[in-house]
Amino acid sequence: METKILGFSAFSGTGKTTLVEKLVLQLKAAGLRVAVIKHDAHNFEIDKEGKDSWRFSHAGADMTIVSSSTKTAIIEQRPRTLYDNLAMIHDVDVILVEGYKTEPIPQIGISRKATGKGLPYPPEHYLAVVTDDETVTGVPCFGLNDIEAITQFVLAQARPLSEVLR
Amino acid sequence: METKILGFSAFSGTGKTTLVEKLVLQLKAAGLRVAVIKHDAHNFEIDKEGKDSWRFSHAGADMTIVSSSTKTAIIEQRPRTLYDNLAMIHDVDVILVEGYKTEPIPQIGISRKATGKGLPYPPEHYLAVVTDDETVTGVPCFGLNDIEAITQFVLAQARPLSEVLR
Repeated sequence: METKILGFSAFSGTGKTTLVEKLVLQLKAAGLRVAVIKHDAHNFEIDKEGKDSWRFSHAGADMTIVSSSTKTAIIEQRPRTLYDNLAMIHDVDVILVEGYKTEPIPQIGISRKATGKGLPYPPEHYLAVVTDDETVTGVPCFGLNDIEAITQFVLAQARPLSEVLR
Repeated sequence: METKILGFSAFSGTGKTTLVEKLVLQLKAAGLRVAVIKHDAHNFEIDKEGKDSWRFSHAGADMTIVSSSTKTAIIEQRPRTLYDNLAMIHDVDVILVEGYKTEPIPQIGISRKATGKGLPYPPEHYLAVVTDDETVTGVPCFGLNDIEAITQFVLAQARPLSEVLR
């Protein structure tokens, strides 16, 4: 199976991360290998102070890799594009991308009327919209908690990675 | 300048991580781009509970990438070899490798008589030895705190990455 990709795009406060987390659980339960790439607008701190990877990064290492028999963490202290990150992904069936609103990848838009968060672009920009706003029309729409139907949509509509990289 | 590589090999309790950390500081002060790859024998926890990357990993994502404008963290919940990790490294001048004792890469051995930690292999296995044991002979030897001389040795003796990957 070729690796497929789908983005999830929304303003903060819509429950985007929770939705992606639930989709990972569903896709893993379906036996798929899953990757998530998230763009974080803030200066997140991944490491715990005093840990080896923290020490190397804080000493100035541009790249730090810590690898055990089951897990590897790679930390790069330099800018990377979405496409740099996609090039790191290997041996997965589905890549869920969160937060690269302006990138030309196939996306699902998320809005939440209850918190006043509309869609970043008009509905027709998206393959589908996940929302509590019943006035959204023109594309397939799902409720915010309609995880099974959204999972089926992801399985059917995620696009081949090769199309995005072309 | 071609990317160079050098390993640091020792039993735990020798101050290996502290030595690598100090070398990163020195090499960065010399204007070089530096990567560190560390093999961790334990099941390290990189993430803070509740952080987005932790949530995706714990939902089962095989690979999780969180990327800001200055920093990226890539977490893979599958085994990776040293060579898989080397393939991830890009645009650095020097790669310091810690803890892959049995890999056929050029290495500096570290021993510490004060804590009863000898070398994993005989001295001639190494390009040089860092130790407080004055009976070690047959290879260049450095004291545990002789950071400037060790830095000069790394700059002169680190090997081209292409030789290791051949």
